[in-house]
Formats: sequence, C-alpha cells, structure tokens
Amino acid sequence: MPVGLSGLPELLPVSGVRWGVAEAAIKRPGRNDVALMEIAPDSSAAAVYTRNAFCAAPVSVAKRHGAAQATRYLLINSGNANAGTGAPGLQAALDSCRAVAELGHCQPEAVLPFSTGVIGEPLPLERIRRALPQALAGLSEQGWEAAARAIMTTDIVPKGISKQLVLNGKRVTITGIAKGSGMIRPDMATMLAYLATDAGVAQALLQQTLRQAADRSFNSITVDGDTSTNDACVLVATGQAGVTFASETDAGFAEFDAAVTQVCQALAQAIVRDGEGATKFITIDVQGGRDTAECRQVAYAVAHSPLVKTAFFASDPNWGRILAAVGRAGLDGLDVDKVTLHLGDVCIARGGGRAADYTEAAGQAVMREAEITITIALGRGSAEARVWTTDLSYDYVKINAEYRT
Amino acid sequence: MPVGLSGLPELLPVSGVRWGVAEAAIKRPGRNDVALMEIAPDSSAAAVYTRNAFCAAPVSVAKRHGAAQATRYLLINSGNANAGTGAPGLQAALDSCRAVAELGHCQPEAVLPFSTGVIGEPLPLERIRRALPQALAGLSEQGWEAAARAIMTTDIVPKGISKQLVLNGKRVTITGIAKGSGMIRPDMATMLAYLATDAGVAQALLQQTLRQAADRSFNSITVDGDTSTNDACVLVATGQAGVTFASETDAGFAEFDAAVTQVCQALAQAIVRDGEGATKFITIDVQGGRDTAECRQVAYAVAHSPLVKTAFFASDPNWGRILAAVGRAGLDGLDVDKVTLHLGDVCIARGGGRAADYTEAAGQAVMREAEITITIALGRGSAEARVWTTDLSYDYVKINAEYRT
Repeated sequence: MPVGLSGLPELLPVSGVRWGVAEAAIKRPGRNDVALMEIAPDSSAAAVYTRNAFCAAPVSVAKRHGAAQATRYLLINSGNANAGTGAPGLQAALDSCRAVAELGHCQPEAVLPFSTGVIGEPLPLERIRRALPQALAGLSEQGWEAAARAIMTTDIVPKGISKQLVLNGKRVTITGIAKGSGMIRPDMATMLAYLATDAGVAQALLQQTLRQAADRSFNSITVDGDTSTNDACVLVATGQAGVTFASETDAGFAEFDAAVTQVCQALAQAIVRDGEGATKFITIDVQGGRDTAECRQVAYAVAHSPLVKTAFFASDPNWGRILAAVGRAGLDGLDVDKVTLHLGDVCIARGGGRAADYTEAAGQAVMREAEITITIALGRGSAEARVWTTDLSYDYVKINAEYRT
Repeated sequence: MPVGLSGLPELLPVSGVRWGVAEAAIKRPGRNDVALMEIAPDSSAAAVYTRNAFCAAPVSVAKRHGAAQATRYLLINSGNANAGTGAPGLQAALDSCRAVAELGHCQPEAVLPFSTGVIGEPLPLERIRRALPQALAGLSEQGWEAAARAIMTTDIVPKGISKQLVLNGKRVTITGIAKGSGMIRPDMATMLAYLATDAGVAQALLQQTLRQAADRSFNSITVDGDTSTNDACVLVATGQAGVTFASETDAGFAEFDAAVTQVCQALAQAIVRDGEGATKFITIDVQGGRDTAECRQVAYAVAHSPLVKTAFFASDPNWGRILAAVGRAGLDGLDVDKVTLHLGDVCIARGGGRAADYTEAAGQAVMREAEITITIALGRGSAEARVWTTDLSYDYVKINAEYRT
C-alpha cells in the first residue's frame, strides 16, 4: 500500500475549469479512462514535457499545439500511451484533437492531447471518439476527483491536493492532480500532472513558475530511474479569482509561486509514496557539494542503487551499500574521509568508515520506520540537493513482470 | 540457477603458481574462506582495480604494494570486504600482508591482499592469521578449483576456465578464476578475478594486456549497476613455459593477447550468468553510434533499466521499455526515426515504432529463450559496443533483502 497516503483530500473547484470523464474501454471495460478538462476563455496555460528522445505522439502534438492563452481543452486517456507508434500514432493524436474541437467548437490547436499506459499499442481512436460526448455532457467544476481516478494506470490511489490562500485581498485556489507509479524519473515533469488556479498569470510568467516548481518537485523524484516517454505537466490560470500577476515583482506573487511549488511537491511525493511496490518513502539530502549538479548526481546514484533499495525494503541499515553508491557516483576527487552519513538523526558513517558511536540497534530503529531521511554530507562545498524515492520490493518485480498480462 | 553454466571445466595447473586454502570462519564456519596464491620468483604480475572512490582497505594496500615482478603472494578472503572500515581496516590489511610475509619469508610489499563480502564490518584478522599455516601447508599447483570455491560469496557456482595454445613451439597455459554475482558493474575489473599463465611477459606489456582484456570483458558487464568497492583483477605470468614476450610485436603475442581476452570474457560472462537471481543471459549490441562511448551509454541505459529487466524476467517482448531506455540515455540529437531494434533475429521496431512485419508471437519465441541478444542500431555512425547483463527477478530482491540476516 502507498506509504503515508491516507485517501484523497477534498479537491476544491477552480473557477473557470471543468472536468468530464467517460469510459472508452481502452485497455479493459469497467472504468472511466478518458478525462477532458475544459478551460474558460482568457485563461493562460503553461506546460513542461519529457526529455525522452522517444517522446510519445501526444507529447509531440501537445508541444506543436502549444500550451497558450488559446488552449481550450486537455484530452487525457489512460490504458494506452500512444508511444512508439510512429506516424499512425501521430495521426491518431491529431485526430483526437480534431474530434474534441468539432464537439467543443474550437480550433484543433486549442486542444492538447495526453496519453498514459502501455507503450507500442495502436491508440483505439474510435473508442475514444465515441466516449467524448459523455465526457462533454458531464463537464463540472466538481470533476477533479473523477479526473484523478480516470488518469490512473498502475497507481493504487488517486493523487490530488488543493491549496487556498488570500492574495491581495482575494481568495485564490490552486488544485492539482497527478498520476504515476512506475517509469518515474521525470526529466521535465512527471507522468501527467494537471494544475489549475483561479489567479490570473501572464503566459510567460506562468511558464517560468511551472518550470521552477517542476524542478523542485517532479524533477526531484525517482522510483526506478526510467524517464517516461509521456511525462507532461500542465498549469492553467483562469484569472477568475480577480487577482492577476503580470510580473514576478507583483505584490503577492512570491507567495503564489511558493504555493504552486508546494502543490507540485505534494503531488510529486504522492507519486513516490505510491511508487510501484513501495514500502518506504525515502528522502535523500545531499549537502556540502561543490554545486547542485553534483549533489543531484550523488542523490540519484543512491536513489537508483538496487542494492540500497533492497536494503531499505529489508529495513537493513546496510550503510556500506550507501557509501559504495556515493563512491561510484563519479565525483571528481571525492575525499571519502570527509563524507558523513546520517540515517535519520543517527550518524552512521564518518571518515570513510562506521562512526565510532554508531550501534546497529540505533540504525535499525530508523530503518524500521516507513519514512526515512538519508543525509549525505560531502564536505567539499555549500551546495545541496534533495531527491525523494522508494525501496525495491518483491511487488515491484511482480507489478512489472505481469504488466502486460 | 545460473544461466547456461554447466559446472566448472577442468582447471589446468600453471607452472610457477600454487594455491592453498583454509577455513578461517570469517562469516560462518564450515567452508574454506581464505585462499593464498604463491607466485614463483621471476614472474611478472599486473592488476586493475575498482574506480569506486570508496575503495576498500585491501585495494588501497594492494595498489600501494603494487603488482610487480617482486610480488610473491596474493591473499584473498571471502565473507568480509574490509571496506568502509577506515584506518583500522587499513591497518588490518597491512597486518595480514605482514603475517603472510613472515611465514613466507618475503617482504610485506610482496603480498597483495584482497577481500570480498559484507561491507563495514571489522576484518577478523586474528582468525585469518591462524588459518594461514594451513593454507601454506596445502599449497599445490592443483589448487585452482579449491581457490575458486574459497573466494565465493553469493555466487551459486565457482567460476574458472583454462585455455591452452601452442606459441612459438611451446605449449602455453592460461588459467583464470573469478567470483562475483551482485554489486556488479565493474569499472576497471570485476569483483575479484585471478589469472595466471606460464608464458613470460614483460611487466609493462602484461599490464597493458590485462587492461585491454578487462575493458573488453569485466568492464562490459553489469548485473545491478553498482560498482563494487573491492573490484580487482590480477594476471600473473611465470615464464615457465619457456616462451617470453617483451613487446607486442613479438611473434605469437597477438595470439596470446587474444587468448587472455577470451579467458577474461568467459569469466566475465560466467559472473553475469550467475548474477544474483538471474534467469536470463542478455547480450546488448549497440551499433551505428558516433563513438564507442555513446554506444556504451545506450547499452548501459538499457541494461540498467529495471523495467527492461523485469520484462525479460517475465519473457515479455515489451520493446516499448527498451525504446524508452534508449530515448533517455541522453544522446544528443538522437533521431528516433533512424533507430532499429532487433530481439534475436526478429526486427521488432523501426522508424520510431513497431516494425510492420512484427508479430507478438515472433517476439515471444525469442523471449522464451534463456539467452537473448538485443541489437540496437542507432543509424548515426559506425561505432559499436557490447554489454552483457541479466534480468531482474524476485530472487534478486530476496537475495539482497536477506543478505545480512
């Protein structure tokens, strides 16, 4: 079961955004697998996408159409990634936008398509097309939870969060949903996240806000090191709360910006907590590096080590595996005698070896927790980075060995 | 069970090299866990070691002593890696050399120490010291198999091979043993391999021969992407066959050099075949790259992908995961439309998507085999690289979750 996720919190409506869902039976019948977000005119929209060279057809089309003020609809399906599908896949993504545009009376370019699910199968376009009227008929400001459920694949729980704050005397709402559990090592955004706010934000500023928030959230998590072909994250700002930001120096913007990052971090952490087979939620703090890049390099070397991950699954304070991962991270001239390693509050290694006052009992007490922080101090600078990850369990293998069966 | 390993072949003695083993009960009693190689005077020796910044104490000492003409003994223990043990660990490694030197009447610098096993526990030096007389008393040219067994940790089977060839009218023997199963992504050599030949080879030439052979064998395998703290590989040349090489242009040297590489490749592949939890032996051929480095980058991205590895475990031709791994390997300007992917002889993807003539049945027929070759053609140059790896199974998690219990 997901680590420390206790059900979906109340998702507050965002004025100017409506969601509708429908059952297209893309992978199997019996669930809603299409979600449609309708965006009010005069909103702005920003998006970030995967850097995987094999990006999926819908990612190519969404990039081509561009998240912009003109964007009217987001069309999302689960059960099929429409990735590795070549020219026919691209055509199917374009045609799906056209189908929404006809029903919604807008240009096809005002529709951004997103897909998630198995790679390499043709998208069942006709079934999606037939499901669209149902999704449109059901459009509602209350539709966030239904959308969060419709976009799930191997996710055990739906993921979403709302945040309200008062900015310049107006109540502003930010609501976001996300899906993702495996193939998680976002390099731009995560495996599908959708956020909206009723604040108004100028297009360029909105894009900058989203990029920075994604870097501090979705781009700092990993489950298995595999960057998805379909990663995408969209932030919509409708402006219907009566407060608008044109520049980052505007009063209240810093607070708004921080709130967007907090929502993104909550969603990103929810993806890790629901990581495939996860039994632990692990925070890796690397400090004392020469720059952020090398701190991230160390954090990811530890986060991706199957030996570290299986030790966490076993609640085994096998710190030698953590040191070995730090040592192979490829840092130039790393002086191991200056490296210090903490598990929670327990200093476990110092000066290249086990800390003199360390006891196995103290290490094990930390390891038995479901949420664990590793702190690695490199002792060669003042930069730092934080990455969130999971352990590696039998269930990870089971989920991924049986995925297509 | 190891993939395609059918018992240890006959290991031929190498004149000038004797092995003795003993039980020091380092991790638990009931098996020989110390091996001692005695090298005849006037031999030469070469070694390559891990690049992990957290290299183990014995690696530091072996590098300091230096594999050279003066090298008389290799002392190897399993059950304890003497890594992450700080200054006391370094002293223990030095003291173990001193103990051998006293009994063997040589300088401590003529002894190279090696350890393999759990990281971070103090080396039980006294128990090793007490076991040395037994190892010395049992020294024998027939001792290769006993040594191959004594150095095992999570290995299921001992690993070794012999090769004989006639060079310049003399019969030359090369025999090698290795151990390794997890924490396998050698970056210099593997988790302990020892080779000897009765050919004579000048010191510098021997080092060059070993480095090139290691690059084409131990440095081209991965089980879990975790470079060990203790990797080491030693090649000894006793000269007792009556043929000596001083330069790479000497008659017969090219043949000798190729034979050393073949022995190293057989040992490296045996480590993969006995990789922790392995049920498949996978060869990844990357062709058509701009240079070898980018071909290796792609090969390792695929070889380390937990999603690819679990798909192999499930015998699932989930080629989308392979393409996704190629796409995230970080190649600048990769044109996915030029990438072609074969599973065995079956063309599975072409032009960024599934090959038109591909059938799931054909893909599954290949995947059901225990030995599978993936060929990835990048279509942007003429460089190539080959890497050998395993799948990721329930047993991998089991072995590593229970390692210290």
